Amino acid sequence: MKIYDTPGFPNPARIRVVLAEKGLDSQIEFVKVDLFAAEHKQSAFLAINPTGTVPVLELDDGTFISESVAITEYLDNLDGNPTLTGKTPKEKAVIHMMQKRADDQLIDAVGIYFHHATPGLGARLEAYKSPEWAHRKEWGDRHHEKFVRGMKYFDGVLKTHPYVAGDDFSMADITVYAALMHGSAAGIAIPDDCSALSAWQAKMSDRPSVKNRSGQVMELPA
Amino acid sequence: MKIYDTPGFPNPARIRVVLAEKGLDSQIEFVKVDLFAAEHKQSAFLAINPTGTVPVLELDDGTFISESVAITEYLDNLDGNPTLTGKTPKEKAVIHMMQKRADDQLIDAVGIYFHHATPGLGARLEAYKSPEWAHRKEWGDRHHEKFVRGMKYFDGVLKTHPYVAGDDFSMADITVYAALMHGSAAGIAIPDDCSALSAWQAKMSDRPSVKNRSGQVMELPA
Ligand SMILES: N[C@@H](CCC(=O)N[C@@H](CS)C(=O)NCC(=O)O)C(=O)O
Ligand SMILES: N[C@@H](CCC(=O)N[C@@H](CS)C(=O)NCC(=O)O)C(=O)O
Repeated sequence: MKIYDTPGFPNPARIRVVLAEKGLDSQIEFVKVDLFAAEHKQSAFLAINPTGTVPVLELDDGTFISESVAITEYLDNLDGNPTLTGKTPKEKAVIHMMQKRADDQLIDAVGIYFHHATPGLGARLEAYKSPEWAHRKEWGDRHHEKFVRGMKYFDGVLKTHPYVAGDDFSMADITVYAALMHGSAAGIAIPDDCSALSAWQAKMSDRPSVKNRSGQVMELPA
Repeated sequence: MKIYDTPGFPNPARIRVVLAEKGLDSQIEFVKVDLFAAEHKQSAFLAINPTGTVPVLELDDGTFISESVAITEYLDNLDGNPTLTGKTPKEKAVIHMMQKRADDQLIDAVGIYFHHATPGLGARLEAYKSPEWAHRKEWGDRHHEKFVRGMKYFDGVLKTHPYVAGDDFSMADITVYAALMHGSAAGIAIPDDCSALSAWQAKMSDRPSVKNRSGQVMELPA
């Protein structure tokens, strides 16, 4: 199997944590995609993922899987013992519900803020991000607010449960963690009153699958 | 089990098709939520779904599941024979990938267009939709374009495969179908050159699980 990604970026980090959780690191060949050079917006990359984002998983039969949830479903079910996406119908449902909330309220929100209201990944790439749109900063700033509201929502969840989807660690925890990493790289800290979220983040940072890649932070252009 | 929803709306329609596909209709009690009266933005409803959207599934143990993907995962796995969300790791991965593309490019895009660039569900509800935001129409119109691009993308997929995720019908087909239904209610037709998408839509309309609810279209306020 191959993974096309950019080390240190938040969505690729989700899959690297999944690989470590499942003990699959050694079965993967990594192919680096240069986001700063907008390699993912060129036709060679768009042929493997028309959405133009990393990560992408290539199966041994040549099938390309993009979208972190889809890649996680694949890797987690390979051994017939899903530990990240749920075993029972109810576990699957709660995990996918919290996963979608983490996508909408956190990781996608901070991505929109980053690309619309900050210099993002620099001029070369940002040319692909609706440069003609006059009100992108205002739109980006609204997603800053959404991300902060999202952190408060997840803080409430973590006040009553040890993990995002309840009693057990799941892919939803990985998504929230990666989103906070992106928030931090984009200059948005966890609000002071979100003590449950901060405590959970510290606990996550100590997890072997996360700890081993704690040196990986987004390297933004100067 | 109970479903809180509003008949005729696109995301609720996804779950009603799932119920019919799985032969589960008779096990469900439906509770109607009045979207036009903004019932889903009041505290009683927000307590069961903080995101403030329908549909929501209530399990017999009192657990509330929102998000159509999560509800579909639950219902599809109840009998141990998932026919909509995939059996093998690869099936699950391809279905979730296409599902996420259908969410991002179609059903969420047309929802943003509808709520931001048209009168949407009327003044009472729209007061909850960032009325203070000056550029919402421009933002909405960008999602009209995104939805049209999305239809062209799925037309390309359906030129080479009978269903959205390949050879077999899946939840991704249900999402694309519901999104086209929303597009049509919002005045956006399938482009003339998308003949594969139109042919697939006609085939879907003939599926028993869909046909039985073909009278259900969004009833927009006059
Ligand atoms: N929904 C996708 C999001 C992927 C994504 O946005 N990846 C970022 C890197 S963290 C990317 O490729 N950004 C480049 C761009 O949007 O131009 C997933 O779940 O994998
Ligand atoms: N991501 C949700 C979307 C649910 C959704 O947006 N439902 C619409 C009805 S089709 C709704 O409740 N809209 C009311 C509103 O946004 O105010 C899902 O998959 O179920």
